[in-house]
Amino acid sequence: MSTEYDFQGWLGFDPDAVHGNMSWGSFEPKKWEEHDVDIQITHCGICGSDAHTLGSGWGDTIYPCCVGHEIVGKAVRVGKGVRNISVGDRVGVGAQARGCLQDDCAECSAGRPNYCINGSVYTYNSLYPGNVGRSFGGYADYNRTDSRFVVKIPDGILSEDAAPMLCGGVTVYQPLRDNGCGPGKVVGVVGVGGLGHFAVLFAKALGADKVVGISRSASKKDDVLALGADEYIATNDDKDWATKNLKSIDIIICTVSSPEMPLTDYLGLLRYGGNFIQVGNPDRSELPNINAITLIMGGFKIGGSAIGSPQDIEEMLQLAVEKNIRPWVETRPLKEANQAIQDLEAGKARYRYVLVNEKHYRG
Amino acid sequence: MSTEYDFQGWLGFDPDAVHGNMSWGSFEPKKWEEHDVDIQITHCGICGSDAHTLGSGWGDTIYPCCVGHEIVGKAVRVGKGVRNISVGDRVGVGAQARGCLQDDCAECSAGRPNYCINGSVYTYNSLYPGNVGRSFGGYADYNRTDSRFVVKIPDGILSEDAAPMLCGGVTVYQPLRDNGCGPGKVVGVVGVGGLGHFAVLFAKALGADKVVGISRSASKKDDVLALGADEYIATNDDKDWATKNLKSIDIIICTVSSPEMPLTDYLGLLRYGGNFIQVGNPDRSELPNINAITLIMGGFKIGGSAIGSPQDIEEMLQLAVEKNIRPWVETRPLKEANQAIQDLEAGKARYRYVLVNEKHYRG
Repeated sequence: MSTEYDFQGWLGFDPDAVHGNMSWGSFEPKKWEEHDVDIQITHCGICGSDAHTLGSGWGDTIYPCCVGHEIVGKAVRVGKGVRNISVGDRVGVGAQARGCLQDDCAECSAGRPNYCINGSVYTYNSLYPGNVGRSFGGYADYNRTDSRFVVKIPDGILSEDAAPMLCGGVTVYQPLRDNGCGPGKVVGVVGVGGLGHFAVLFAKALGADKVVGISRSASKKDDVLALGADEYIATNDDKDWATKNLKSIDIIICTVSSPEMPLTDYLGLLRYGGNFIQVGNPDRSELPNINAITLIMGGFKIGGSAIGSPQDIEEMLQLAVEKNIRPWVETRPLKEANQAIQDLEAGKARYRYVLVNEKHYRG
Repeated sequence: MSTEYDFQGWLGFDPDAVHGNMSWGSFEPKKWEEHDVDIQITHCGICGSDAHTLGSGWGDTIYPCCVGHEIVGKAVRVGKGVRNISVGDRVGVGAQARGCLQDDCAECSAGRPNYCINGSVYTYNSLYPGNVGRSFGGYADYNRTDSRFVVKIPDGILSEDAAPMLCGGVTVYQPLRDNGCGPGKVVGVVGVGGLGHFAVLFAKALGADKVVGISRSASKKDDVLALGADEYIATNDDKDWATKNLKSIDIIICTVSSPEMPLTDYLGLLRYGGNFIQVGNPDRSELPNINAITLIMGGFKIGGSAIGSPQDIEEMLQLAVEKNIRPWVETRPLKEANQAIQDLEAGKARYRYVLVNEKHYRG
């Protein structure tokens, strides 16, 4: 079977791509295998990781690359070995499209391909095993992905709302769920950007008693309360915020990371048994150091969380439909991808950009 | 009722006390209250904290002080309000003799006085509420302690074995138990000194599949295997120890702390869902910093643990009796306390010193 469509997308050729210098062009998708699905892309969310990859911020990118791992579209070709997807389905691919999927991998066999230790096949910018080619992302017309990383998008949610959940949403949904977010719990969200805004939405949807937005300045206070948060702490403005809120929170989702952030003060907010979960990972990712006594006397734990598995995504989308979660999304035409990446880098997103492929979606 | 005994012990008058300059003398115990117990001391373990306190290493000590919080002896006076102890009982007091015990304290009311946030009454070196005096420890003839922090020592364990468990033992027993140590689990113990040797003993007693001692040099290897450990890693000698043992351990108990320790490599030893628990807290307690990505991709958690509650101690002693746990203890006459502290500081203990009050115990 030959394909009747071309794989074209926005390509970065060097780290300067992050400054608005992607070029539209063709790419060679991975060699077709019978467990694959081809997707005609309608939507692709813009994630901070896209900028990190375009600019080689997390390590050397394999150029040319086509980024984007919050892909929604229509399945247009489905391999004979595929069980979960049919041609015509509305489907999604998230950042979790990685993992060796081998039986002898402790993480993949436990349903956690997002923690695979045998290397990984990322949604973009990695080599497939078996020399079948490279992975390319969703700032494009078409995408080819192993069906085990493709999920069906349920009815009852807009594609533009579902897209940014596939990475940004599940990155905070999974640790909220795994750390017991629900009735009786107080959740703190450090940094309210793309990830943080999802953390507020999902914490409320999961039934937390109280959600506290925590940011440096008061500038986002109105937004955060409008998103559903119950309280807001502006660490630059609220003197004594650390002592006033001591031991008052059960779960902190930290979406920012900087060697200068007041980590010890954040940890002091946690009740006994509380959890501080790092999800933010900027280019410069060193955390401040802490004293042993802070750990010893705190009675809390510090962990991190990496995106989520396809099963996590399905569960999250179901919750989003049930609770009618509406993320704050601004759609941008795919043709404006270069400008959108620059706007993201400039911190203008309120709170998530989604590229819409005008060839495949008319709204 | 007047007491027929004097409160005398080894007193430190300034930070130089840690260098063998404690003086024997009288002290004024806290004012008697009807929930108190007076203990005729037979044994007192020497804990690293004693040296930290004598030398003002953890903050300003209130001099004169009498240290020692691994106290075993005989109850010789029991207040009318005491329910758990009778005159003549063999009893113990650990480092957990702290906590406000007020109903409105989240930690004390939950049975965790060791995490009390309303200030604390430590076994030594703190002021009692209500202006009834100061706390003095067990390098002494007698001790007075609130009965809610006094436990009965069960039959079937030597006093010299029980004493060092009251702080050193429970400090590692509690986090092992709370983090699921048992069949199917692999435990790593970083640093095998007083605390670490207990961690090996309790991890085996709790049924861990495998216990791995981890230290810088190979010098303690024979001891650690003799204690019951199954494997030993010498980080200075075993090249590639970090990669060879990647993701192989479920629980790490870290009894040492230094800004130079290879924390990221230790964390790499943890399996998904594993826990790294810091219990060691030397004077210079800053931990190395780590990268956000280490947390995010690791799937583990970092926490700490502070001693244990009286209930934890009772449970631990019961296990020690059942499993016939024999710590490696060297007894020293109480009169040699100054020399013993110096020997401890010089790293000579293999693995725990216990002072024996020759006036009250003839062996």
